[in-house]
Amino acid sequence: MIVVMKQHCSDEAIEHVLVYLQDHGLSGHLSRGVERTVIGVLGVVGPSGICGNTGCINPELGEALEALHCVEKVLPVSKPYKLASREFHPTDTFVEVPVPCVSEGVVRIGNSTIVMMAGPCTVESEKQLMTTAEAVRKAGAVILRGGAFKPSTSPYGFRGLGKEGLKLLAKARVEFGMAVITEVMTPADVPMVCEYADILQIGTRSMQNYFLLDEVGRTDKPVLLKRGMSATIEEWLLAAEYILSQGNPHVMLCERGIRTFERLTRNTMDISAIPLIKQLSHLPIIADPSHGTGHRDLVSPMSLASLVAGADGLLIEVHPNPDEALKDGAQSLTIEQFQHLMPQIQLMATALSRTVITE
Amino acid sequence: MIVVMKQHCSDEAIEHVLVYLQDHGLSGHLSRGVERTVIGVLGVVGPSGICGNTGCINPELGEALEALHCVEKVLPVSKPYKLASREFHPTDTFVEVPVPCVSEGVVRIGNSTIVMMAGPCTVESEKQLMTTAEAVRKAGAVILRGGAFKPSTSPYGFRGLGKEGLKLLAKARVEFGMAVITEVMTPADVPMVCEYADILQIGTRSMQNYFLLDEVGRTDKPVLLKRGMSATIEEWLLAAEYILSQGNPHVMLCERGIRTFERLTRNTMDISAIPLIKQLSHLPIIADPSHGTGHRDLVSPMSLASLVAGADGLLIEVHPNPDEALKDGAQSLTIEQFQHLMPQIQLMATALSRTVITE
Amino acid sequence: MIVVMKQHCSDEAIEHVLVYLQDHGLSGHLSRGVERTVIGVLGVVGPSGICGNTGCINPELGEALEALHCVEKVLPVSKPYKLASREFHPTDTFVEVPVPCVSEGVVRIGNSTIVMMAGPCTVESEKQLMTTAEAVRKAGAVILRGGAFKPSTSPYGFRGLGKEGLKLLAKARVEFGMAVITEVMTPADVPMVCEYADILQIGTRSMQNYFLLDEVGRTDKPVLLKRGMSATIEEWLLAAEYILSQGNPHVMLCERGIRTFERLTRNTMDISAIPLIKQLSHLPIIADPSHGTGHRDLVSPMSLASLVAGADGLLIEVHPNPDEALKDGAQSLTIEQFQHLMPQIQLMATALSRTVITE
Amino acid sequence: MIVVMKQHCSDEAIEHVLVYLQDHGLSGHLSRGVERTVIGVLGVVGPSGICGNTGCINPELGEALEALHCVEKVLPVSKPYKLASREFHPTDTFVEVPVPCVSEGVVRIGNSTIVMMAGPCTVESEKQLMTTAEAVRKAGAVILRGGAFKPSTSPYGFRGLGKEGLKLLAKARVEFGMAVITEVMTPADVPMVCEYADILQIGTRSMQNYFLLDEVGRTDKPVLLKRGMSATIEEWLLAAEYILSQGNPHVMLCERGIRTFERLTRNTMDISAIPLIKQLSHLPIIADPSHGTGHRDLVSPMSLASLVAGADGLLIEVHPNPDEALKDGAQSLTIEQFQHLMPQIQLMATALSRTVITE
Repeated sequence: MIVVMKQHCSDEAIEHVLVYLQDHGLSGHLSRGVERTVIGVLGVVGPSGICGNTGCINPELGEALEALHCVEKVLPVSKPYKLASREFHPTDTFVEVPVPCVSEGVVRIGNSTIVMMAGPCTVESEKQLMTTAEAVRKAGAVILRGGAFKPSTSPYGFRGLGKEGLKLLAKARVEFGMAVITEVMTPADVPMVCEYADILQIGTRSMQNYFLLDEVGRTDKPVLLKRGMSATIEEWLLAAEYILSQGNPHVMLCERGIRTFERLTRNTMDISAIPLIKQLSHLPIIADPSHGTGHRDLVSPMSLASLVAGADGLLIEVHPNPDEALKDGAQSLTIEQFQHLMPQIQLMATALSRTVITE
Repeated sequence: MIVVMKQHCSDEAIEHVLVYLQDHGLSGHLSRGVERTVIGVLGVVGPSGICGNTGCINPELGEALEALHCVEKVLPVSKPYKLASREFHPTDTFVEVPVPCVSEGVVRIGNSTIVMMAGPCTVESEKQLMTTAEAVRKAGAVILRGGAFKPSTSPYGFRGLGKEGLKLLAKARVEFGMAVITEVMTPADVPMVCEYADILQIGTRSMQNYFLLDEVGRTDKPVLLKRGMSATIEEWLLAAEYILSQGNPHVMLCERGIRTFERLTRNTMDISAIPLIKQLSHLPIIADPSHGTGHRDLVSPMSLASLVAGADGLLIEVHPNPDEALKDGAQSLTIEQFQHLMPQIQLMATALSRTVITE
Repeated sequence: MIVVMKQHCSDEAIEHVLVYLQDHGLSGHLSRGVERTVIGVLGVVGPSGICGNTGCINPELGEALEALHCVEKVLPVSKPYKLASREFHPTDTFVEVPVPCVSEGVVRIGNSTIVMMAGPCTVESEKQLMTTAEAVRKAGAVILRGGAFKPSTSPYGFRGLGKEGLKLLAKARVEFGMAVITEVMTPADVPMVCEYADILQIGTRSMQNYFLLDEVGRTDKPVLLKRGMSATIEEWLLAAEYILSQGNPHVMLCERGIRTFERLTRNTMDISAIPLIKQLSHLPIIADPSHGTGHRDLVSPMSLASLVAGADGLLIEVHPNPDEALKDGAQSLTIEQFQHLMPQIQLMATALSRTVITE
Repeated sequence: MIVVMKQHCSDEAIEHVLVYLQDHGLSGHLSRGVERTVIGVLGVVGPSGICGNTGCINPELGEALEALHCVEKVLPVSKPYKLASREFHPTDTFVEVPVPCVSEGVVRIGNSTIVMMAGPCTVESEKQLMTTAEAVRKAGAVILRGGAFKPSTSPYGFRGLGKEGLKLLAKARVEFGMAVITEVMTPADVPMVCEYADILQIGTRSMQNYFLLDEVGRTDKPVLLKRGMSATIEEWLLAAEYILSQGNPHVMLCERGIRTFERLTRNTMDISAIPLIKQLSHLPIIADPSHGTGHRDLVSPMSLASLVAGADGLLIEVHPNPDEALKDGAQSLTIEQFQHLMPQIQLMATALSRTVITE
């Protein structure tokens, strides 16, 4: 962390910063330039980062330093996340998910294979879920997605079947041998969702719901953490750090588009986040081209682009009759469209010397 | 709601949309232009908007229609929120807050008076809170802000004193006769926070935490709903609609800046949201120039600008010693700066023929 | 175009809109809903869109209608661009560029083949340019990029060699048989740049420099039009429409990233714009992953992702010694990295059943 | 400028950076932290900033350093603009404009007085211009705005009367004694526009049209530089630096809103840019609430908010009959609305102890 002082600061102001650092068990390394004086902050590496006896070099220290007299700005040098970083954990993390329908009985996400998660946006009825599950399983998906609790922008919208939806998902798991991923929206529901699901999904609106992150961090279930719709990559990795620091190492990230001024797509899918996450972190990353674009016509090209960019898997909305979907019909593939997409994914996997896990 | 069909759609596709509407108890009004056919969706006005027997004209209907074959886009005509809209409730809503230190014993926010809410970002200690409370009360603030639960981007940051913080706030209320506003972050904490606070604050990261909105909507406490950091005004009013539709009419909005590409400020404060909210809604609106800018030097000009634009009050961070603040020191005013700001606000109030509620 | 009236509008206000339309030779189709009255605007299709005798249904008519009394908003139905739209021109446009080094002597961009444009950000010296040109030609690029006029955010930065740079580019063309693409920044320079270059590049900062668009529209040179850094796709296609409407049909689009709040990349590359442009327009689209990301480590994955998403070619910065580049070194590939990228592109082309034009 | 090295860099990589700096006449100040090594870049202050014998500490040096092996990032310490900065020029700059109708014959913009610029978006006819000019002059405006050259997003839109419009503006100047401000869009038109106008306006789309900035920088006319629609404040000040560095010191800035995801306003007006510019620069700043919001209902509150935040003047669109405006009618005030606004501005000026220049 580097403290940049304003021009023409008094020696007292500079001294004040140095004393402040000392008081927190850190030390400052002074460097007087022609126009500016800068102070490098030094500490010792401890279990939760670089620390002194009463303070650590973290974003809060930066905020505190920026508040000091005559400080112009504070420039971070180290990354604020540790457990999520590749520097801390150089080798790729594999997240293991039990999947009865594959021969090994388990899928390892993040080990260069490709895993397909598909299903309806929302569980609407037994028939809708079973039809979709059967079809996507046949086409090669091994993980079934489906919302039992749905965030709806309007209070008058459909908010999901709740526990009834979870039970239907569990029924589909038994029937088709797929693992189940579903969203959990509030800490109180975590135990119930854990009972029925194999992967807990944290939605875009919940990426900074810290009580929820803590709660899923205290389970040992795999977690899929979607990027907040205006989150920076650093904030996203810090949200992952919440879960990791509670002791749950089974975290996957999911790029699902960010909000921009563009109006022809629902979000702007940030494909460059995929290789960037691979550089910065050891965690697997999944792409969600359905929410990422909002248009079913764009799902196929963006699916392939995500895989080429390095995604470990895809999360795709499929509905047997998108016309009658209660949510997000415009971005759901039909079963036929999904069946048409899978061979393209296989082709791409071959070109990339990767394997799609289908059995 | 207007459905725009793609060019060269078959009559079957158009008929399909009309039948879909009929099936939901709505009707379609066909209009064939030179290049495009458009269909106006008609219904009857019911208790939760314009509805047919099995469907209403709401965003979900729009999503469903967009998923139909040959539909190019769906254009909303009516606003998706009702209870929050000025059309539904033409006169201004006043939110009443019990404030012992004012002669009436109560403050009515939204009735053209100006109410000052001030205090530290976070409750750090009894001394810090009491010193600040005493000072801001003397300077004219009637509502004390202070976080007991703090959202921290990093899991290693300070997350507040929790219940201990709430008790200190309650103690300050007794001592100085101020009302207390504090953030509640998770549904399970709502009863406890209600016990200690006069106004429940919903933070920017929680604006779309729907379980939390539901929960505060089931209380009868005043709620201050901050704008999400990338929320549109429409989404913000829909979040207010969540609280209102649960039966709690005591909702205030709070503009605190949105995320943009500008890097010199923490957020870009959208001052135009203030008069716009006044046009679209009957709810009071408060401005938070501390988070809105992130720099204490900008707090005074943005405070005055917010009032001139029509804000019903201000929420301002003040710290007795910003150098030692555990959070957000750079955007906190010193006590002296707050004392200096208050006469400027009085002056502005006089120019605007408004009254600052101080006693 | 649909005019949505405010609630409770008088019949006079509605009549006023209808008369306004009549005065412009258009007609209005009235539809009274339960909450709102809407007016569809009708005209007859003429050479420059849908028009009446003194007005056309274009964005300006929308602006004019929005200014009328009691109008709440105006919703566009048709697209504001014609010549650039696929509706107007259903088959793909191929832009032909003379390229001596390929056997046919010409490259057709947009016909499902892949064309590689590579070279330094800026022409710095004869040695730098010739070394790079030779290397990228050998690796398979057929079009040489290189800036003679460089937009520099700072007036103290390097702004290019100007005419001297153009001459060097022309020399490289003779030497290696490559076509040359270079940026033209101001109308007065168009004739000179035409003399030396095969493709005129319009940079991101010039996308709405209408005098420049007019000027290149009056030539018959191929034009590569970069997306403005905060341009919507609609505005971008309208900029293309400027060039097309002046009579130059040889327009290619280039996605190079848009500005967002993300700070780890220089821009956020909008890969979804590639398939979207293919749907909306008949013009070829090129991807620029160098500016799109700002980091050389991201250029390879984003190159491949762009091709998979449907890009007709790539524009890539290569520098023989990025350490010594006068501009954008951090995003330039080394020659070795470019040599390493080409076989990956070949592999991807094979998987996509497309051909990379190399000879 | 501070160079942050990646973790685990070899001594050779660090040495390479130091040698690179030496080669450019600069020196590096090494600081080895626990996790990272950082290098402070030092030089000597020269006429165009801090320089060595072959290089200066400017954004280009930063780019070059970021391209070096094992460099993680480069953190700027100094501001990249000099002539526009308050550090370089601590006292406020007054821009003098000859205005026959005021008693002094000249208006000094930037000296704490308030100057009102008003008129139609576009010059449409002699009658429209003269009616508006007379009315806004009577109401207190001293500078007449009106576009002769208009940037139109669509090539089919109205692009202004050109020279004919300039002549009408000059006629209005003679008739009403007002100064004239009008946009110049391309370098070739600068001499002609200088002949007719008192202030040259650079529009938002031209903020980074560097040939145009150079050209107006070579005149001695006052220039009003609008903020680019997605420009950061730093880029905006660098654009001003272009004009200043050509020798024209008469530069005013104009905040006119930035592009965000909000859809209810045309742009998001960044009021905080006004006090921030006052801190960072000595140049006057004008606010344009017409383009800043896009809605005439928001012009009055945002005008007053801008003045309270420190704006030196306002640029407001007024049209005698907005219904018939060829451009931007929805954001134009009627003459009556402008007449109603002026007393509010007077009132606000009094409260702020400032004077509105009207005679």
